[in-house]
Amino acid sequence: MNTAKHTVSAFDEELDALRDMILEMGSRASSATTDAIKALNKRDSEKARAIVAADRDIDALHHRAETAAVNIIALRAPMADDLRVVVAAIKMSALLERTADYAKNIARRVERITIEFPDKTWDILSEMSSEAGAMLTDVVRAYAEGNAAAAETVVERDDIVDDLHDRLTAKLLKHMIKHPDSISQAAHLMFIGKHIERIGDQATNIAEMVAYAETGEQPDTRDTDRESLAA
Amino acid sequence: MNTAKHTVSAFDEELDALRDMILEMGSRASSATTDAIKALNKRDSEKARAIVAADRDIDALHHRAETAAVNIIALRAPMADDLRVVVAAIKMSALLERTADYAKNIARRVERITIEFPDKTWDILSEMSSEAGAMLTDVVRAYAEGNAAAAETVVERDDIVDDLHDRLTAKLLKHMIKHPDSISQAAHLMFIGKHIERIGDQATNIAEMVAYAETGEQPDTRDTDRESLAA
Repeated sequence: MNTAKHTVSAFDEELDALRDMILEMGSRASSATTDAIKALNKRDSEKARAIVAADRDIDALHHRAETAAVNIIALRAPMADDLRVVVAAIKMSALLERTADYAKNIARRVERITIEFPDKTWDILSEMSSEAGAMLTDVVRAYAEGNAAAAETVVERDDIVDDLHDRLTAKLLKHMIKHPDSISQAAHLMFIGKHIERIGDQATNIAEMVAYAETGEQPDTRDTDRESLAA
Repeated sequence: MNTAKHTVSAFDEELDALRDMILEMGSRASSATTDAIKALNKRDSEKARAIVAADRDIDALHHRAETAAVNIIALRAPMADDLRVVVAAIKMSALLERTADYAKNIARRVERITIEFPDKTWDILSEMSSEAGAMLTDVVRAYAEGNAAAAETVVERDDIVDDLHDRLTAKLLKHMIKHPDSISQAAHLMFIGKHIERIGDQATNIAEMVAYAETGEQPDTRDTDRESLAA
C-alpha cells in the first residue's frame, strides 16, 4: 500500500464518519418530531420530557459533526467537490440541530394541553407530523445517496405541510372565538402547528443543501415562510 | 514585494471583504427589524412591502458571503485560527439570513393588522424590537472587533427580550378572551412578538459564534427557546 492510497482511504473514512453523524441526527430529529406529536395525543408528559432530554444528545452530535468537518478541512484541505460536501455537512448539521429544537419545543408544550383536540385538529396535526417526519427521513437518505432528484421531491412536499398548517390555524381561530375559556390552550396548539410547519421548512432547506452539495449550484432559496393566517 | 507577502496580503483582503459582507448583512437585518415594527405602528403597507422586497438583497449577500468563504477555504487552505474565522463567517451568514427572514415575516403581517394595539402591547413590541435590533448591531460589531466579551453581553440581554415577550403574550391572551371578534388580529400580533423573540435568539446564536471564532471553544448552546406561554 503506498502512502497516497493510504491517505485517500483515511480521508474517505472521515467523510463516511461525518455522513453517519448527519444521518444519525436526521433519524433522531425525524423520530423526535413524530414522537412529540404522539406524546401530545396521549398527553404523555413522561415521554415528552424524555424527548426534551434527548435533545442534548442531538446537540452533542451537532458539535461532534461540526468539529469533524472543520478538522477534515484543516487536515485534508479538500478541493472542489469534496470541499462542497464538507461545507454542506456543516450547514446540514446546523439545520438538523435547529429542526430537533422545534420538536423539543412541541414536547415542552405537551403538559400544557388539557383540552380535547377541537374539530379535526388532531387529524391535521397527526398528518402534518407524519409528513414533516417523512420529509426529514427522505432528505437525509437523499443526502446519503447523493441523490439531488430525490431531494427535489422533498422541496415540493413542503406545500402539503403548509396547506395543512393553514387549515389547522383556521380551525383553531374558529375554536378560540367560540370558546374563549380555552384560548390559551388553543394558542399552544397553534404554536405546535407552527413548529411542525417550520420542521417542514427546515427539511426543505436541507434538500436545497443536498442539491448544492451535488451540483455546486446555489439554490434559489425557496420562500418557505408562507405566513398566511386564515382570518 | 516578495510573493509570500503578496499572498498574505491578498488573503487578508479576502478576509476583510468577507467580514464587510457579514457586517452589511447584520446592519440590514437590524434595520429591517426596527423598520418592520415602525411600519406596523403606522400601518404603513408600502414600507412593509419595501422591507419584504429588500430581503432579496440580504439573500443575495448571504450567497455571495458563502461563496467567498468557500473560495477562501479552497484557494487559501487557511489553518487553525483563520479557518475558524471563515467557518464562523459561513454560519453567521446563514444565521443573519434567517434573522432577516423573521423581520420580513413581521413586515408581511403589517397589512393584516387593523385593530388598535391592545393595552400597552405597542410599548412592549416597540421595546422588544429596539432591544433585538440593538443586540444584532452590537453582535456584528463584536464580530468585527473580535471582541468575545462584548458578544457575551449580547447573550445576557436575550432575557430582556424573552421577558417582554412573556408580558406581550399574556396581554394578548387576555385581550382575546375579552374581545373574541379580534382574535385573529391578536394572533397576528402574537406571531409578530414570537418573530421578534426569535430575532433575539438568533443574535444570541451569533454571539456564540463570535465566541467560537475568537476562542475556538464550542459554546454550551444556550437554551434560547424558552417556550413559556402565560396562561
